[in-house]
Amino acid sequence: MRQDRKPVVEFWYEFASTYSYLSAMRIETLASDYGVEIAWRPFLLGPIFKKQGWPTSPFNLYPAKGHYMWRDMERLCRQYGLPFTLPSPFPQDALLAARIAHAAQNQPWIGAFTRAVFIAEFGQGLNIADESLMAELLLEIGAPARTALSTAQSRENKISLRAAVTEAEKLGIFGAPSFVIPGGDLYWGDDRLEQALEAAGNLVETDA
Amino acid sequence: MRQDRKPVVEFWYEFASTYSYLSAMRIETLASDYGVEIAWRPFLLGPIFKKQGWPTSPFNLYPAKGHYMWRDMERLCRQYGLPFTLPSPFPQDALLAARIAHAAQNQPWIGAFTRAVFIAEFGQGLNIADESLMAELLLEIGAPARTALSTAQSRENKISLRAAVTEAEKLGIFGAPSFVIPGGDLYWGDDRLEQALEAAGNLVETDA
Repeated sequence: MRQDRKPVVEFWYEFASTYSYLSAMRIETLASDYGVEIAWRPFLLGPIFKKQGWPTSPFNLYPAKGHYMWRDMERLCRQYGLPFTLPSPFPQDALLAARIAHAAQNQPWIGAFTRAVFIAEFGQGLNIADESLMAELLLEIGAPARTALSTAQSRENKISLRAAVTEAEKLGIFGAPSFVIPGGDLYWGDDRLEQALEAAGNLVETDA
Repeated sequence: MRQDRKPVVEFWYEFASTYSYLSAMRIETLASDYGVEIAWRPFLLGPIFKKQGWPTSPFNLYPAKGHYMWRDMERLCRQYGLPFTLPSPFPQDALLAARIAHAAQNQPWIGAFTRAVFIAEFGQGLNIADESLMAELLLEIGAPARTALSTAQSRENKISLRAAVTEAEKLGIFGAPSFVIPGGDLYWGDDRLEQALEAAGNLVETDA
């Protein structure tokens, strides 16, 4: 095994999730600081929430929690220097974006695409279910838009994204963002991003 | 107005809550660092959860979330140097402890009593519904145990604790721990403790 091989942290995110936005914008810079690599794992929270008896986001089901979340997001975005707009409706239909990102998870432009979607949604309040917006964002980041969209809508990719949701559940994931470090330890929420990366980074010393 | 008057942060906590344990153990030292004072506001989450349709802790209702919470607590307690034991049953019946603390919220020993209860519960796994344990803890911290217990069980105090729950709801509180700074801004969760204290501490500069 090569000595300089970096530990890989799985970053499980859902495009409709506000706190996933925060982690998506921060993770690449932080991963570099902690000496770890990121595996981008877009998935869908909807099917997991439905199994818990939630037909929509818990932030809609529990108004006090939702009200607080918007205030918390305002404060955190100001702290991180990120723009923030309430998308309408919330949650957004994130299926198309998730399919594109799932198909592209090993492409060099996956990070740029993920950030572009989140900025369009929570920075500019745009509708991420719009296929022409997706095409525009893909072109902007220099990705092959037509191929990316047709691969995203292929039967294989749809099935594979469903399998990723099942994989997430098996890992114990119940919300987003979530981080899984080598060995399977799970961290939930943007508040745990640094802790997860640090724990993964420390695994190198143990292995050496 | 005196220049050296410190901003007061309301610390809303529930004795059955794991994350309230973390904040209760940390808040007095941190408050001193940030130049703020603490108003101890013990309350009951049960009535608030029931209104949301939860007959018990969401950590019991949603097993994946509960499983994660115990792992998260283990890691955080190690990080903070705190003991951690799973109390059985969970959640504990915290009504008596809440009544004692509510009646004593302005006593000089409220912090010591709060920490003693949490350590008994989550450090030693003891049953905090046990009145003799409460008496023991009160004596250990040098509080007038007999008076504290009889005041706690008075009709006035029971009514006053219920009113505190209503007050919590009006403040937008839906979980514990929660922190309310002067002006009413709400912060939820042990993860927000430092942010809440810092925001309150900064209010002094604005007022000066």
